[in-house]
Amino acid sequence: MEKYFLVDEWNVIEEGFNPDKNRLTESVMSLGNGYMGIRGNFTEYYSGDSLKGTYIAGVYYPDKTRVGWWKIGYPEYFAKVLNAPDFTTIDVYIEDERLDLAKVKFKKFKRTLNMKTGCLNIEFTICDGKNRETEIKTKKFISMAKGEVAAISYSITPLNYDGKIELIPLIDGDVSNEDSNYGEKFWDEVEKNVDGLYGYITMKTKKLDFFVCTSMKYDVYCSGNKNKTEIEPIVKEKYVGSKYKTYCNIGETITLYKYAAVTSNRYYKNEELVSKGKEILEEAFLKGFDNLFEEHSKALEHQWKESDIVIDGDVESQQAIRFNIFHLNQTYNGKDPRLNIGPKGFTGEKYGGSTYWDTEAFCFPFYLSTHDKSVARNLLIYRYNHLEKAKENAKKLGLKGALYPMVTMNGEECHNEWEITFEEIHRNAAISYAIYSYVRYTGDEEYLSDYGFEVLVEISRFWESRVNYNPLKDKYMILGVTGPNEYENNVNNNWYTNTMAAWNLSYTLKVCEILKKKYPEKYKVLKEKLKLQDIEFEKWQDIINKMYYPYVESLKIFEQQDGYMDKEQKLVSELSKDDLPLNQNWSWDRILRSCFIKQADVIQGIYFLNERYDLDTIKRNFDFYEPRTVHESSLSACIYSIIASQIGYQNKAYELFLRSSRLDLDNYNNDTNDGLHITSMAGTWMTITQGFGGMKVINDMLCFKPYVPSKWKSYSFKILFREHLLKIDVKKDVITIYQERGNEFIIKVFDDEYTVPQNGSVIIKK
Amino acid sequence: MEKYFLVDEWNVIEEGFNPDKNRLTESVMSLGNGYMGIRGNFTEYYSGDSLKGTYIAGVYYPDKTRVGWWKIGYPEYFAKVLNAPDFTTIDVYIEDERLDLAKVKFKKFKRTLNMKTGCLNIEFTICDGKNRETEIKTKKFISMAKGEVAAISYSITPLNYDGKIELIPLIDGDVSNEDSNYGEKFWDEVEKNVDGLYGYITMKTKKLDFFVCTSMKYDVYCSGNKNKTEIEPIVKEKYVGSKYKTYCNIGETITLYKYAAVTSNRYYKNEELVSKGKEILEEAFLKGFDNLFEEHSKALEHQWKESDIVIDGDVESQQAIRFNIFHLNQTYNGKDPRLNIGPKGFTGEKYGGSTYWDTEAFCFPFYLSTHDKSVARNLLIYRYNHLEKAKENAKKLGLKGALYPMVTMNGEECHNEWEITFEEIHRNAAISYAIYSYVRYTGDEEYLSDYGFEVLVEISRFWESRVNYNPLKDKYMILGVTGPNEYENNVNNNWYTNTMAAWNLSYTLKVCEILKKKYPEKYKVLKEKLKLQDIEFEKWQDIINKMYYPYVESLKIFEQQDGYMDKEQKLVSELSKDDLPLNQNWSWDRILRSCFIKQADVIQGIYFLNERYDLDTIKRNFDFYEPRTVHESSLSACIYSIIASQIGYQNKAYELFLRSSRLDLDNYNNDTNDGLHITSMAGTWMTITQGFGGMKVINDMLCFKPYVPSKWKSYSFKILFREHLLKIDVKKDVITIYQERGNEFIIKVFDDEYTVPQNGSVIIKK
Repeated sequence: MEKYFLVDEWNVIEEGFNPDKNRLTESVMSLGNGYMGIRGNFTEYYSGDSLKGTYIAGVYYPDKTRVGWWKIGYPEYFAKVLNAPDFTTIDVYIEDERLDLAKVKFKKFKRTLNMKTGCLNIEFTICDGKNRETEIKTKKFISMAKGEVAAISYSITPLNYDGKIELIPLIDGDVSNEDSNYGEKFWDEVEKNVDGLYGYITMKTKKLDFFVCTSMKYDVYCSGNKNKTEIEPIVKEKYVGSKYKTYCNIGETITLYKYAAVTSNRYYKNEELVSKGKEILEEAFLKGFDNLFEEHSKALEHQWKESDIVIDGDVESQQAIRFNIFHLNQTYNGKDPRLNIGPKGFTGEKYGGSTYWDTEAFCFPFYLSTHDKSVARNLLIYRYNHLEKAKENAKKLGLKGALYPMVTMNGEECHNEWEITFEEIHRNAAISYAIYSYVRYTGDEEYLSDYGFEVLVEISRFWESRVNYNPLKDKYMILGVTGPNEYENNVNNNWYTNTMAAWNLSYTLKVCEILKKKYPEKYKVLKEKLKLQDIEFEKWQDIINKMYYPYVESLKIFEQQDGYMDKEQKLVSELSKDDLPLNQNWSWDRILRSCFIKQADVIQGIYFLNERYDLDTIKRNFDFYEPRTVHESSLSACIYSIIASQIGYQNKAYELFLRSSRLDLDNYNNDTNDGLHITSMAGTWMTITQGFGGMKVINDMLCFKPYVPSKWKSYSFKILFREHLLKIDVKKDVITIYQERGNEFIIKVFDDEYTVPQNGSVIIKK
Repeated sequence: MEKYFLVDEWNVIEEGFNPDKNRLTESVMSLGNGYMGIRGNFTEYYSGDSLKGTYIAGVYYPDKTRVGWWKIGYPEYFAKVLNAPDFTTIDVYIEDERLDLAKVKFKKFKRTLNMKTGCLNIEFTICDGKNRETEIKTKKFISMAKGEVAAISYSITPLNYDGKIELIPLIDGDVSNEDSNYGEKFWDEVEKNVDGLYGYITMKTKKLDFFVCTSMKYDVYCSGNKNKTEIEPIVKEKYVGSKYKTYCNIGETITLYKYAAVTSNRYYKNEELVSKGKEILEEAFLKGFDNLFEEHSKALEHQWKESDIVIDGDVESQQAIRFNIFHLNQTYNGKDPRLNIGPKGFTGEKYGGSTYWDTEAFCFPFYLSTHDKSVARNLLIYRYNHLEKAKENAKKLGLKGALYPMVTMNGEECHNEWEITFEEIHRNAAISYAIYSYVRYTGDEEYLSDYGFEVLVEISRFWESRVNYNPLKDKYMILGVTGPNEYENNVNNNWYTNTMAAWNLSYTLKVCEILKKKYPEKYKVLKEKLKLQDIEFEKWQDIINKMYYPYVESLKIFEQQDGYMDKEQKLVSELSKDDLPLNQNWSWDRILRSCFIKQADVIQGIYFLNERYDLDTIKRNFDFYEPRTVHESSLSACIYSIIASQIGYQNKAYELFLRSSRLDLDNYNNDTNDGLHITSMAGTWMTITQGFGGMKVINDMLCFKPYVPSKWKSYSFKILFREHLLKIDVKKDVITIYQERGNEFIIKVFDDEYTVPQNGSVIIKK
């Protein structure tokens, strides 16, 4: 853990440049708009350590996979988030010398991510080898208003010299992925051109035929006036640039506005990529930087209005939660059901793939509660569209029904560690659980008949074929799995998996009853389409009745899996500091045979099926499992924090909230260099709303059990529940629920029901 | 399974060429002499499918490893058997046209491995595109008398034309490994020269600095007369050749004798590689092909004299067992304790590494019983010399003592699948067991004080730190292991592992007592050197007393591991043919959660500690486990066959013998293309000697319980027991034990003791 960035309510600030922290800062200060994104790189050439990254949603590459020993069923390819042509760079020459930020001294330096307006500001004064001092200010943003557009304002001022300055705004298509398995490059050039201030390059991926046209246009002002001077086109392989040459007097500021547009054949035809790009670019160019920026920040303002969380009394927490919400909104906008939420969003390459169970298990509630329901619905539709591939996947493993992939871009599995790919099957239940959550939260039961039921049935069929009946014990078992706690592999009867599988079957049967009653015609059609037989229902009911759940009688807790209690029982507090994090210090066998837990497992089940368990049971399990949990997954702390809130462990809940919310800002796991932990950010949001706020939906009613963490004065959060936009304001002695949009309706706070009026509020004194 | 080769007592014959079987034949007809080896490739250029292979014992390459997801403790490098410069090829031009055997028609074709004389004969008549018919006869061998030498006799006769024939004996250093992880080549050129009939090339590995000088010399006879004609040197990058041009009349035979010598810096200094090579080569050249061949076959004759098995009444079995013995003797000669027995010997690249637990668990008894005791001793010394590396290896996993690697060349682990590398720890016990076997068989207790005890103590320390005490059950457990049955990963309390670990501790304690009594001074020194404490002995005894062994009470059998009986219980006979082999048809998770067993596991333990168990117990376990075993390891059938013999299941024993002995000849597992299963060949030898022959050493006495499989008339085998060379001849009604060397001594046959006279025999009538 390290406190590197300055703390501020709306900004993340790096003051003074530290080359060792450059990758960290680049990750933290990434920008995106759901359509594309960039890391917080310098605008200028920088030969030091950096991960230069530009990413376009859904434009990926099926890299040749790399395994030690091939196993049947492994995918041939590993789909990777693809580093795309770079439109952010402006190359600078001062007196014919190329500016390399790794070779200068910084006199003043400030890199700031402004989360309120969604822009990156980099301001510094540099002193080069010839003692020339130059001040440079960059401001860039990726438009929230127009997906394909980005803009950069770049100002340069010679402070102690007159001289020739050349600026080369450019597009560099010769990019590669650091994580390319065999050092291959993934892009071929298609066409390019530079014409004065305008240039473009169209690149094509070597496989899958993604075409991307990246275009730019710029203009330059000298001390505020439009500047006409010599322009020279530069065309190289996979590269276009336009050299702007000027002579600059001491103190005079040259400002270059670079506009970029990125069009891809995900949305346009190949033959219109250039013209569409040009059209979009011209429109942006005509509007100009300031108008574009205003349009962009207005869009962002609207988002903040619907999803902000305000914390009074703790600026660190305030900064942290906004940082989380900011990046969630940058990553996914819910407009295109072909897209999903990558674990690193647009902030790095690592992990490949765009979709993990993270989406359903951790990200879903945030989008469900802060965006129009179509957004969460599109996340569900994404999986619906992959149902056929999930069926193929199950078939590969010799199983029935559908097994959704562990990691995917297009529905095909692209992960290849047998203990995860083939065995971490609990992911299937999370997909059913998201359907359940969606319907519970929105009341949109029609979704079940339109899409949900098919998915539920095929997943249920998977469970049916995956369990095995044990006649000696008259129980159904699920052998050879990896649970959410990936520090156990190939275990038998993971309690979470068995519990969620049986729940999943129950929910499918329940949905069946709903459909029979409410949509009998549609149900008939579906039953036909799915070739559903009554004998299947009976089998599912039998499995539900006879599912085996490991249990520790002496402690009255659920046993994480068969044999867990045979392990040497130690607590994390007994470990030496040198041991932690275990995954960076211990060999895998040592981790596996230890009792230490990577992330919530039994507690994840208790979180999902919370109403089933009484507080004593929850407490006993928390007391046993939390001290054995090392939280080495970014998805752990949030779930434990929520349960800690529920059982009144407020300090623990707060400690875990901090760990979750400042994971990247404070680089807790020493891996933020690779990119941000986007999916766990939604978990952070949950620690406040569901944890501190105690928000739940029970029997169609929105319920709260809020408290204020002792370090805070108060906090408030916004949520959208059905047609109601609410602001929940929690102070130590009073809770106020404002309705900002929507009609009068009833909610529950602690044990009482309250009517929230239209445009009014309810005040509950503690 | 396929019956491709002709059956013959002493030969393996391919009659008629089948390009699809070329790799198979190349593997089967490999030649070697413990120092180097070659696959049974064509001498001529062949553009069809082939794995051209030349291998030099101990010359390996640390290829960059390839893994999906890196785990702490994985080795950076994977040591590979290195394809070395090719000295076997003779390029042929007929009327300026290069002969490519893939482009001609074969009129007669016979490729024969003669196991008696250890040579490969390839004879064929070809018809080329211009209807020229040419007869070619090749005979090659790798000298058993002089390790560095190989020789080829190559005769070519134009049958229906006169014409220009050019022969280019060559050395090609531009070779690569098919299994190179990143397509890299591993050799650099150092120097080369061609001078008339002599040429050489010295190559160096890009890493580890192995230097190898490959030299050749040849001469040519035309219809029996030495032929002088034009010779042209050919020198290319990593290549030397010498072109011999002649004009040949119809029916005239040109015979070229190519001699090769391979010297490496494993035995010579870098600066003398060329001169030593030349010296060895000149000596061979002066002797001439026929004399060299005689010298070679005499050495082989001696080997057959001491290790042959003769079977009367079943030529298939006769061919098979000789095939097994032949290749074992080709692979390892026991002269250099830095060498070991690679799973593919000199017959292919696959698996890399040279040493697996196969050596101790399966190969050891063959060398122990058919060679001077120094050979088996050198196998033990090999591990003794790696003790420090094994200690480092244990330390990497956070454990005490020594963990020998799963796969190694130089003592360092080079395997990287966590479930094997880190968890298949039972290999450690096999190393102790080999020490035990050696001492039991040879009576050489001094080995224990000189070398064995140190290894035993460090391995015992490993077990001590690897078990965990379970206070709830007052038992020691071994969690997270992979047993011999690799179709189970990361299981708890594998019965075999627990049993062998406890046995190992007992044996160490026993050896301690022996040393105290017989070598008290040496013991004192060792105790000091090892910093042995009495408290360690107590701890080991406690672990022995309280080791946990899974057991199925209802069936009175040992349970393969915790939870095995929770699996769906099916038999191999219930599987569809399409399912088999499982490892080519089922995904890994499916294999893991099934009850099917790859190779002897519980039965392996019963085989090792055979005297512990009564026949009923052995029978019950065999009856339960064998029908669940798919024998998809080459090391499975032999062990089951031996136990089947013991419990009187003679047909089963014979069926499993066939499977083991003809594994490669009949390509049972459809993988002989990659090379032969060398290590399982020793298992085949055991099925006869220990299985059918019931050979054991109990309390210093050699014992037999022989029977004749019903398909055979009789059989005999040779063994060297201490100073006694015996021939055990088993007929249905009479057993004869001849002593060919050694003094009178007592043996046991069935339940009675017999005195075997010097140079005489004992006859036992049934």
